[in-house]
Order: sequence, then C-alpha cells, then structure tokens
Amino acid sequence: MSSKGTGAYSQDRLGDFRAYRERMNERILGAGHLGINRFFNLDTVAYYDGALDGKTKELLGLVASTVLRCDDCVDYHLIQCTEAGYSDEELTDALNVALVVGGSIVIPHLRHAMETIDLLRAEERAAADDPPGAGAR
Amino acid sequence: MSSKGTGAYSQDRLGDFRAYRERMNERILGAGHLGINRFFNLDTVAYYDGALDGKTKELLGLVASTVLRCDDCVDYHLIQCTEAGYSDEELTDALNVALVVGGSIVIPHLRHAMETIDLLRAEERAAADDPPGAGAR
Amino acid sequence: MSSKGTGAYSQDRLGDFRAYRERMNERILGAGHLGINRFFNLDTVAYYDGALDGKTKELLGLVASTVLRCDDCVDYHLIQCTEAGYSDEELTDALNVALVVGGSIVIPHLRHAMETIDLLRAEERAAADDPPGAGAR
Amino acid sequence: MSSKGTGAYSQDRLGDFRAYRERMNERILGAGHLGINRFFNLDTVAYYDGALDGKTKELLGLVASTVLRCDDCVDYHLIQCTEAGYSDEELTDALNVALVVGGSIVIPHLRHAMETIDLLRAEERAAADDPPGAGAR
Amino acid sequence: MSSKGTGAYSQDRLGDFRAYRERMNERILGAGHLGINRFFNLDTVAYYDGALDGKTKELLGLVASTVLRCDDCVDYHLIQCTEAGYSDEELTDALNVALVVGGSIVIPHLRHAMETIDLLRAEERAAADDPPGAGAR
Amino acid sequence: MSSKGTGAYSQDRLGDFRAYRERMNERILGAGHLGINRFFNLDTVAYYDGALDGKTKELLGLVASTVLRCDDCVDYHLIQCTEAGYSDEELTDALNVALVVGGSIVIPHLRHAMETIDLLRAEERAAADDPPGAGAR
Repeated sequence: MSSKGTGAYSQDRLGDFRAYRERMNERILGAGHLGINRFFNLDTVAYYDGALDGKTKELLGLVASTVLRCDDCVDYHLIQCTEAGYSDEELTDALNVALVVGGSIVIPHLRHAMETIDLLRAEERAAADDPPGAGAR
Repeated sequence: MSSKGTGAYSQDRLGDFRAYRERMNERILGAGHLGINRFFNLDTVAYYDGALDGKTKELLGLVASTVLRCDDCVDYHLIQCTEAGYSDEELTDALNVALVVGGSIVIPHLRHAMETIDLLRAEERAAADDPPGAGAR
Repeated sequence: MSSKGTGAYSQDRLGDFRAYRERMNERILGAGHLGINRFFNLDTVAYYDGALDGKTKELLGLVASTVLRCDDCVDYHLIQCTEAGYSDEELTDALNVALVVGGSIVIPHLRHAMETIDLLRAEERAAADDPPGAGAR
Repeated sequence: MSSKGTGAYSQDRLGDFRAYRERMNERILGAGHLGINRFFNLDTVAYYDGALDGKTKELLGLVASTVLRCDDCVDYHLIQCTEAGYSDEELTDALNVALVVGGSIVIPHLRHAMETIDLLRAEERAAADDPPGAGAR
Repeated sequence: MSSKGTGAYSQDRLGDFRAYRERMNERILGAGHLGINRFFNLDTVAYYDGALDGKTKELLGLVASTVLRCDDCVDYHLIQCTEAGYSDEELTDALNVALVVGGSIVIPHLRHAMETIDLLRAEERAAADDPPGAGAR
Repeated sequence: MSSKGTGAYSQDRLGDFRAYRERMNERILGAGHLGINRFFNLDTVAYYDGALDGKTKELLGLVASTVLRCDDCVDYHLIQCTEAGYSDEELTDALNVALVVGGSIVIPHLRHAMETIDLLRAEERAAADDPPGAGAR
C-alpha cells in the first residue's frame, strides 16, 4: 500500500531504512512502556530456532509481511532472509505464494521486494569486492 | 473473522468442510469461466515442489491464511500440512509467527486452528486403528 | 472470512439472512444515534442513479464486498444485482475480477457467492412457477 | 466477516462463546509454547490501568476489534465494556466512530455487536432478578 | 496506507510511476518464475471484454483498489479508466461507492485519486495542444 | 503500509501534510458530489461531544487508524489528540493497545506515530517560545 515504488527513492534506500528503523526503535524502547518493550522482545524471539529453525521462520515472516502489504516489514525480512542464505530463486518462489494468496493487490509490493533483493545483492557484491579491513594496515 | 469458533459445530466439522469445498469448487469450475479456472490451477501449482519444496510452501500458505484471518484457508492448509508430516510443535511454532505478526486479532483463528489440528489428529488415530480394508475379506 | 460455507446452513439461508438483517437494522436505527442513522442513509443513496446508473454501482458494491471478504455484504449485493437483471455470466465475470485482485484468500467467499447465486435463481424459479396471487380469487 | 449473524445462533450464544473461548485458550496455553503464552499475557496486561485507565482501554479494544471486523473480539470487549460500566449510549457512540472509520463493510459487525449488547443486558437483568445465592439457606 | 499524499511528489509523479512500474515488471517477468508470469497474464486478461465489457471491469478494478487502499493500483486503474472514456463525474461517483464501503480510512486514497485524475486530465490537455507529430516535417 | 518512514521526509513533514490535506479536501468538496460531501461532514461530526466526549473519541480514532495502518489518518488524529491535551504517556499507552491488537505489522506505523508526536511537541515548544504576535507592534 506504499507508493514508494515510484522512483522517488533516495540514493541509499536500504541505508536510509536501516538508520530510520534503528533510530525510531531506540526512541520507542526509550519511552519505557513495559508492554511495548516486551512486545518488541517477543517479536525478536519469534524468529529464533525452535520447533522450526529460524531460517524457515524468516521466510514465514516474509510471506506474512507481503500478503499484509507492509513494505518496511518486507524489507526487514528480506534482509534477514538473504543473510540466512536464501537464493533469489527461493525468495521468488516464496513471493509467488504471497502473490497467489494475496492477489494482484500484492503486485506493487512484489515490485518493491524485487528491487530490495537487487539492492541487497549489490551490497553483497560490494562487500565481497571490498571486504572490511581490506587494504588496512 | 469467523464466529464459528463458538461451539456450534456440526458433529463432523472437517467432513462438512471437505464436502462443501469439493461441491462448490465443482460448481465454480463448471461455470466455465476461463480466468477463474486458470486461477484455481495456478493456486494448486503454487504449492508444488519448485525452488522451495512443497512442504515448506504449505507452511507459508498456513501462515499467510492465518494472518489474513481466513478459517477455511487455515483448515485447508492444516490438512495439507499434517499430510506433509509436520508435527504439532512445528505447526504451533508457525502459528506463533502468525500471532506475533498479526496480533491479538488472530487469536480467534488460533483457537480455530488448534481445534482443527486436534480433529485431524483424531482422524489419523481413527484411521490407524481401523485402516481401510481392515477386516475385509 | 466466514466459515459458514461448510454445509451448516439452515434450511433457508437467504430467508434467515433477510430476517436477521431487517430485525437488527431496525434495532440499530431505533437506537436513535444521529450519526449512525445518517450513515445508513448515505449507504442507501450511494447506489441510486447518479453520474453512474444504479445497476453499475451495485456491481461495484459486489466486487468491493468480495475483495473485503464480507459474506453478508456479498449476499446483500447479489440480491440487488440479480434484481437489477445481471446474468450469471456477468456476475461470474465480476467475481473473477475480485478473485484476481484479492487472490486465493477470496476463494471461500467465491464459493459462498456462487451458492447464493444458485439460491437466488431457485427463488426466482419458484416465484415464476407460483406467482403471488396465483390461484387467488 | 462472519456470517453467523443470520439467525443460526444456538440458544445461548454468549454462553457458547465463553465456554469455547475458555476451553480452547486452555488448550493453547497447555501446548506450552513460550512465545504464545507470553503473548496471551501481554494481551491481558494491555488493558490494565496504566497511563490510561483500563476502562478507557477496553473501549479502544472494542473499536479496534470492530474496524478489523472480528466478531469474537467484539464480543469479548463488549463483555468487558459492560462490566466496566459503559451505558448503551456510550457503546453506540463508540461503534459510530468504528462505522465512520471502517465504512459500510462494518455494518454486519455492528448488527452482531448490537445483538451482543442486548444479550448482555438480558443477562444483567436475569442476574438482578435472581442473584446468586438468592433463596439459598 | 501510503503517505505519499504529503506534497513530496517529484515533478512528474505519473511519469515516475509509469517508468518504475514498467522497469520492475520487466525485472519480475525476467526472473522466469512460471507461476508469477502466468499470474501477470491472468491479471491482464481479467480486464478484457467478456460477459462484461472491459470498460466496466476497469471501474470494478478501480473500486476494488480503492477499498483495499493501494495507491499504485488506484493510479493504474485511473489511467485505464480515463483512456476508456470515463468522465470526472463518473469516476467521482465510483469513488463515492468506495468511500461509503471502505469508510474514512479511504479518504487519504481519495485525495491521491483526485490528484491523479487532475494530473491525467492535464496530460490529456497537453497532448491535445501539442499532438504527437505536430509541427513535424 | 507506508514506506515513508525511511528518512526521506521533507524539512517540514507536518506542514506538508496539513497543506496537502487542506488543498485536496477543498478539491474533493469542490467536485460537488453530495454523497462525498455528506460523508466528510459525518466524519467531522463523529468526533464531537456526544454520549462520549470528543477527547475520548479522538483516541478511538487514533487506535482505529493505527490498527488499520493508515499513516495519514494517524497523523491527523495525533494532531487532534495533542490539541485535546493527551500526554505522551497516554498516547503511548493507547498505541500499545493498537500494537497488541494489530501485531508487529503495526510497528512501522508505531515508528511513524512516535516521530509525529515528537514533531508536534517541537511545534508546541516553538509556539511557546515565540507566541503569535510576540514582538509585534
């Protein structure tokens, strides 16, 4: 339901997202509401290894976020999913389930998700070309 | 969003669901609308083995159905998931992801899902005690 | 999101719906809340002939109700649409748009809608066989 | 999104709801999933007195449940709201906010809510006529 | 649910939307997932002439997109609807149905839709003043 | 469902929102559709003092907007709520109810809401330091 998918991105969309998310999460947790702070903890723990491994649950989070049409949630779970080692083909296959379940109204979020995957892969390539500490003395 | 979870079930809730679903799907496909028939086919094929195996995608379907709060869809995917071999603990762990993502509004559907799991396990036990053909001559 | 579509219907589902709807609407309007009463009036007037004719707007109401997955709303608009003269083929074509837009999560409501269409056509045939006043003196 | 509001209720809809809710909540909590159990606790605590008093937050829960169209959640919060002392006029005024925010798609749930209010008031009158312990020796 | 309606548009919002949509659709279709590619085809074909004419179905798509609060989908269907010849008065009358069905939560998307209509009409006027090929030799 | 929460805000997000909202509301009301104009009036009146006071109903509007994930609606109701005198602690406690009801999918909108609260408090402080007319002759 976002309209961000119109080319109006900043130069570093993922960097902006990570910085804003971190800054506002600190602001929220700093407000000191016990219920909210516990909820954030529950949300984190839900994706830890349990009866299902964490990697599988990240994919569940991605599909849930996509059918509920939350671009920020999609971006967060794509970051987690690529770190967990899913290939582009696996992510695309999961997004197809979200598309069939949620219908054409999901398509703008599919466009967003695909762009995010491309941005994450570009980051991976840049990190591989220029690993942290490379060239340091 | 259903209110079925109030004890008003028939004696054989799953049997009723399967029969109604089969009867009305035949009615719909029999209407001969090419777009609808193709959609039903796409929906079936989405859960076949692909880049992700079918078993994983059934779990994606379950969580998507739960956060979208569709009891009939939850029942369908629970039937598929128990056939695919998921344990109660694994299904509960997946439903926890749906609960955290979707919030307390999901709880009535969690109640429905847990009851469905119990009904499906009872069917499994009945089938094991009295396998098809047992006692036949 | 209803689970009614599981065979647990009363003998006269449409009759029950009409009676309950009429009784509770009277209860609501009788509460005398000016805002609610005005909303009900706005809702009625929205489907009158305007820049678009009323018949077209009933179809808009049907598709909106279907993608929002409200069985009672679907039933109401199907009653209006069949009275307005839409054929089964036209209603099915509209429901296909709802299916593509809303995805497989719409399918339980498509089953419900198709059953409602069949019930309404059965009512039409019964009324044609036994018109009001037939046999009267 | 339920279709239960069509006259197919059992003789004691609220009693059925309370019994089913209690039974299945015990089933769920008994499954021993730490995340789910903590979520249920968070959900309970969210309506305790805090910066806002519990009575106000029950009304927030009612309106949130209504715009999200969850009949079981609406019933639960109406039980809490009538116990907290809200009048019919106050509940109706809150439901009007939900109706304006959520649109005509909310109307079937408004019918359900109004019926629930009437059932709860009937229970209150029955309890007043026949208080627990009355006639006991 | 978009927040785009805050004046932060680029100079050519519709042009940006068209370019991003085309670029990302090519990216998605190029991924070669058979299910996704078939879904995109189904989505296109759903608005072709059938039992209902395509023009009517574009209006169904517009209202479905509006009640589901997807600005990108609204923009796409408004492009199609103005090309199909709908007047501002007809589009406004359809959007009123969406507003009544979906409630005040639809209003931000109504603002977005009205702005899109104005942008599309401005494009039409610019094209009429300066037709393709005008002045060419 | 917005993705605005990524740092791409203009210098004066609230000012942009107010200006766009006012401009487009005038555009919409100027279109002269009687149903739409009446809806806007109903929407305004719903938050006036009634059986519940207006201040309470603004909080209902805030929570309804948050669980329905509409950032523009959240901003509007936060403007109203801070004018009505709610403290940060009270608003946070209301947002916690929305978070528990709506789940982690609400978190991006919680981030947006918290930022809006901070922006509104900064406006209040600026107005207190430099009251209208201060220094004027």
